[in-house]
Amino acid sequence: MNLQNRTVLVTGGGGFMGSHLCEALLHSGANVRVIDNFASGRPDNLADIIERLELVKGSVADEKKVQLACRGVDAVVHTAFPMAMRERSLDTDVMVDYLAGLFNLLKETIANNALFVYISSIAVYGNQQYVPVDENHPLEPVMLHGAMKLAGECLCRTLAHSHGLKAVILRAADIYGPKNTRVCVPVRYLINALAGQPLRVFGSGRQSRTYTYVDDFVQAVLGVLVTPEAVGKVFNIAGEQVVSMYELAELVKEVTGSNSSIVLEENVASDDRRLEIDGSLARQALQLTQPVSMREGLTKTRDWLLQVPGFYQEG
Amino acid sequence: MNLQNRTVLVTGGGGFMGSHLCEALLHSGANVRVIDNFASGRPDNLADIIERLELVKGSVADEKKVQLACRGVDAVVHTAFPMAMRERSLDTDVMVDYLAGLFNLLKETIANNALFVYISSIAVYGNQQYVPVDENHPLEPVMLHGAMKLAGECLCRTLAHSHGLKAVILRAADIYGPKNTRVCVPVRYLINALAGQPLRVFGSGRQSRTYTYVDDFVQAVLGVLVTPEAVGKVFNIAGEQVVSMYELAELVKEVTGSNSSIVLEENVASDDRRLEIDGSLARQALQLTQPVSMREGLTKTRDWLLQVPGFYQEG
Repeated sequence: MNLQNRTVLVTGGGGFMGSHLCEALLHSGANVRVIDNFASGRPDNLADIIERLELVKGSVADEKKVQLACRGVDAVVHTAFPMAMRERSLDTDVMVDYLAGLFNLLKETIANNALFVYISSIAVYGNQQYVPVDENHPLEPVMLHGAMKLAGECLCRTLAHSHGLKAVILRAADIYGPKNTRVCVPVRYLINALAGQPLRVFGSGRQSRTYTYVDDFVQAVLGVLVTPEAVGKVFNIAGEQVVSMYELAELVKEVTGSNSSIVLEENVASDDRRLEIDGSLARQALQLTQPVSMREGLTKTRDWLLQVPGFYQEG
Repeated sequence: MNLQNRTVLVTGGGGFMGSHLCEALLHSGANVRVIDNFASGRPDNLADIIERLELVKGSVADEKKVQLACRGVDAVVHTAFPMAMRERSLDTDVMVDYLAGLFNLLKETIANNALFVYISSIAVYGNQQYVPVDENHPLEPVMLHGAMKLAGECLCRTLAHSHGLKAVILRAADIYGPKNTRVCVPVRYLINALAGQPLRVFGSGRQSRTYTYVDDFVQAVLGVLVTPEAVGKVFNIAGEQVVSMYELAELVKEVTGSNSSIVLEENVASDDRRLEIDGSLARQALQLTQPVSMREGLTKTRDWLLQVPGFYQEG
């Protein structure tokens, strides 16, 4: 798929991943359409490009809006996900809205004979049983949002069999960067370091993650859109660098030049998990360039934070 | 769990599997509660026992009704399933109702610290990759209802991790017997044979199934309810006898004494699949008796059909 004049719908286009993706798609010559209810996405995230894209305001759970948004599309990238699903509380409406939205999108993708790019998550793996976690790792999610992502994967695979859906599943590792909706740990540390506040590391500080800079995620999605062989496949999307929470705190201090202290705090909920994700399959199959280093990603995120001091309004 | 004075909620209690289960539970001394919207279930199925059970008329998608139905229960057996999900058309409302219902039930089961018995299906396996299909077979459903059953299994497992849900998953093979809602092949052949009509066998007639008499299904559910070690486990529920469509037609002729002809008909949709399901794990773990033979099950179903000539109003 050449992206010149191709029409791509980005669900949750006003969100963190979605808005970065819209910028890159426009840059590649695609026609970009967005559907977003701005529950967690922000119109401001699209401020620079709003005049160059088509915006459908509304929820993907609204079948009529989805039909409108999908008319004539070549591809749908489903990044929308309800933040409330990450909470421990069990809200039927949130769960239902998510699945209804996914189902509506799948139906319209099939009706338009388009490509569906499903943004799943490494949360589908649950507790890692070996490292690094590749795409063949058992799927045993331990949190609701992982279960819902997995239910969505299952729907994609089945409709590929039963209704000829063309789908690619991307399991995103922890993505960070400018416009992060959730204040994930790298962003939290940057904010604290820039404010001269202590960086709080829970537990031993040895627990680690494969943090992935948002540009690498975007590059992977674009790779999928121009790689017909990707259809029907599942890929982890992850950086190459695994970093412990303690190393991350030290790196943030370096990048910000802060003299914040690093404080180890006991926390029963933390553990020494080494969440090392193997993203090599996607890098090879989608011909991706070398992932952004943690130092570079943190530097770019720092620069953005300095430009938008009020983005996270918190105490 | 001793069933004397235990309270068990049966969703879809007015349906085929549900109504048989209610009878057996009452016989075992349990207090039985039913929730059913009678979309495909029939009040008549409960006629003989209606005064001995508590009935909540309504859909499990109605959270208030589910709260009412689950108050003080010791176990919930979720047999309700929308017939419309078996069709090829993709209806968002049907899908949403099923998952909302499941989610409501899971929440209330957790709130009541009860046991959840999830009636799944061998449809979660998709095309068999080896025979007999045991519980470790890959999960790659090829039809929507299999995908939804699998999504439900996934929710059960995850909520066991995250919220302490006690759940048992039963993957039912093709169940047949009196009160069958769907006119499955054994029932279809019995009806035709009793009417002296030809028994139509599609394709080669070599395709086979592990048909399972409804009493064996009921016995397995009761086994789960009295076997604490079953919590967290997954079991196939299937008879021991694999029968080809041609053999089934011959057996039906014997059982009915009919002189109907057996007609082989070409059908592009049929295949030579040998859907052999391994139900031995459940038989061992739940200490089940020898499954009902195909001959005996067909005989009992024949006797019932002769008693209720108007049950299936068809041309």
